[in-house]
Amino acid sequence: MKSGLHFLIAARQCEIDELDQLARTSELVGVIGRLVHGLQRERGMSNVFLASRGSRFADQRDPQIAECLALEQEVRNGFDQLETETRQRASAGNSARLFSRIAWVLPGLDALPALRRRIGVLELGPAQSTAAFAKLIVGLLAVVFEAADGATDPEISRLLVAMFNFMQGKEFAGQERAFGAATLALGRSNEAQRVQWLHLIESQERCFHVFTDFSSEDVLALWRESESSATMAELERLRRVGTTLTAADAPYSQLSQNWFDCCTRRIDAMRTVEDRLAADLRALCGRKTAQARTELEAYRQLLGTLAPQSGGAMFFDDAGTQAVAPAPYGRVLERSVLDMVQEQSQRLQAMSDELETVRASLNERKVVERAKGLLMAHRRLSEDEAHKMLRQTAMNQKRRLVDVAESMLAMADYLPLPDARPPR
Amino acid sequence: MKSGLHFLIAARQCEIDELDQLARTSELVGVIGRLVHGLQRERGMSNVFLASRGSRFADQRDPQIAECLALEQEVRNGFDQLETETRQRASAGNSARLFSRIAWVLPGLDALPALRRRIGVLELGPAQSTAAFAKLIVGLLAVVFEAADGATDPEISRLLVAMFNFMQGKEFAGQERAFGAATLALGRSNEAQRVQWLHLIESQERCFHVFTDFSSEDVLALWRESESSATMAELERLRRVGTTLTAADAPYSQLSQNWFDCCTRRIDAMRTVEDRLAADLRALCGRKTAQARTELEAYRQLLGTLAPQSGGAMFFDDAGTQAVAPAPYGRVLERSVLDMVQEQSQRLQAMSDELETVRASLNERKVVERAKGLLMAHRRLSEDEAHKMLRQTAMNQKRRLVDVAESMLAMADYLPLPDARPPR
Repeated sequence: MKSGLHFLIAARQCEIDELDQLARTSELVGVIGRLVHGLQRERGMSNVFLASRGSRFADQRDPQIAECLALEQEVRNGFDQLETETRQRASAGNSARLFSRIAWVLPGLDALPALRRRIGVLELGPAQSTAAFAKLIVGLLAVVFEAADGATDPEISRLLVAMFNFMQGKEFAGQERAFGAATLALGRSNEAQRVQWLHLIESQERCFHVFTDFSSEDVLALWRESESSATMAELERLRRVGTTLTAADAPYSQLSQNWFDCCTRRIDAMRTVEDRLAADLRALCGRKTAQARTELEAYRQLLGTLAPQSGGAMFFDDAGTQAVAPAPYGRVLERSVLDMVQEQSQRLQAMSDELETVRASLNERKVVERAKGLLMAHRRLSEDEAHKMLRQTAMNQKRRLVDVAESMLAMADYLPLPDARPPR
Repeated sequence: MKSGLHFLIAARQCEIDELDQLARTSELVGVIGRLVHGLQRERGMSNVFLASRGSRFADQRDPQIAECLALEQEVRNGFDQLETETRQRASAGNSARLFSRIAWVLPGLDALPALRRRIGVLELGPAQSTAAFAKLIVGLLAVVFEAADGATDPEISRLLVAMFNFMQGKEFAGQERAFGAATLALGRSNEAQRVQWLHLIESQERCFHVFTDFSSEDVLALWRESESSATMAELERLRRVGTTLTAADAPYSQLSQNWFDCCTRRIDAMRTVEDRLAADLRALCGRKTAQARTELEAYRQLLGTLAPQSGGAMFFDDAGTQAVAPAPYGRVLERSVLDMVQEQSQRLQAMSDELETVRASLNERKVVERAKGLLMAHRRLSEDEAHKMLRQTAMNQKRRLVDVAESMLAMADYLPLPDARPPR
């Protein structure tokens, strides 16, 4: 029969298992970050390649594809390893959701070669190509989101939340780059385009705001450093030009190129922040695991010095039942076991409370997902259609996506039920 | 390299592992319920035994202790089994907290024989004995609470929340029995006692209210049936008498006995509801696990019919990149894999949302725990002292415990820091 101290150790061992799992997941998140960056570059090149009917970036596309393939292999290995090790050892509670996200993204990776072939023979338009890459990146970011949401250690969770928001903000910056390049190349913008452009800027800023809230001073310094004033000034100038173009303006292919280059400088510089976040994450996981193992060792040594079932004699003491005799040495040890258990229990509770606070920052995205699910069920829409509909409503009403999603959820009971279609 | 379908299956397998773990935990909760009931009876008997200086319940105590010992053995076996199986297979995320609660309660069980011996030789007063049993029961209920809080399936979580609140309400009823018996035996009650009595009634009612919210019609019918009108009428009459006693009244030993018997009838009848909840929990876990296994089998068969890495060809279709040719049979299958992944992902998300709603009902207790932790840190109190201080404040201010706890947390920044004592 196992003693209290045995369970004290078992609880610590569970924490270590969770930290090990988190270390693996964090490692994977770092690799996903690099793949997403590669795909963002490939998307940009493919876009220009298609728009120029194959005349530009034809040479640079192949090395970029080769880089993406190597990173894809790393990500796939990470997925496989995660699954193998989760099946062997204790796993964190959200493995099902994490695996489900991976199940969604893998067919996208499988479909990449065919997509690239069709881009190579100019079978697709720039918009189609961009949408396809964007869909894959959404899937990869969902894996990172789930990793952040499932983390069981608040400090690691904070870093993962920072990382997810940074990656998501960078993706919005990438979308802005594509959108702005197309708009500037066209030489005119209407009200709807202006609104969409501003939406992309606002979405980025919200993500970077959360990233800022959850990052250390060191990371923030690096972030400020990475955003060179010259690039940012140029970016803001081109944003102003792009959103105030009138129909009278001629197509500005040079302006479009400048915009693209400026955005690319900015996005490439962001990579240093991502790398730093990934390195910090690795170091933190290592530190936490080592500390937990040291403490576990101390518990184990104590277990060796104690008689089985000790700790019991003191349990009822503060219920006013203690004997008057002074406590012998054995009792002092037993007292310390009870104290350790209480300390552990309070620490776990405090961690759980803090975790809740960190996770609250992920709720915004969950609200949007929930509203999308509602639209899909009630209006028989695909996920993409539901997302577009929400975004369109937000743009029309000049409200934030999350606010529209919240209104929609609040009104859920008033939505029409889906048509009861006869079975075929 | 593993395919998307492989991860679809892995996600389902994780869900099954979690359901298996939940089934074990639920089984354990049922046994804990029976042990708590046994300890509540033993506490009542010990109380009367001590108050009558050993003249009453001397015969009935031994069989009751034997029953408790048998149940304790079952609970210990359950603890051991849970730990062994968690170490072997994937575990739910809160195992560390669950084990930590178990580590806390085991020394209490270890200390029971010594407590019983001291009661047997009349070494303790009734109040000390009651406090000791109450402390152990608090520990056992904390295990049940953690099981409810850690459940990863919303339906099972609902039942566990109902069960926890019912057990907690029953424990308040047990405390009211002891408190009322002592007050009536004394033949007078002052304002402080009246307030404490009303607090015990209100605490019960709040627990039973949550239980009602989370229970099926069938269980509620059984609950209404268990509360016989005659017993409830008698209970309310004695409550009125007890809370309006004046100093002029003589000690009512007969009234105290009637009160004790009436409460006991009520509490024993509650056992049927607890048994029913435990049986429902067992049946629900069995049903859910069987259903998940059937679905897993269907996935596995589909995996056999598909080429490796299928599902990929259709991934980018709704990004507007599809070919115009009609989909061949293979593609229909692939489409269905993508649909299954999307369905799974949405179902997991919906479960997680619902789980959050169910868990919110457990927050009240967490707020109180947090406030206790704050008091312990800032005023160097033991857990018991912190609890008493909160309860006293609630009684003085005629507010609910949770409201006092919330005010305390809101004012946390204004609390004095603990003295920086010199190291010894």
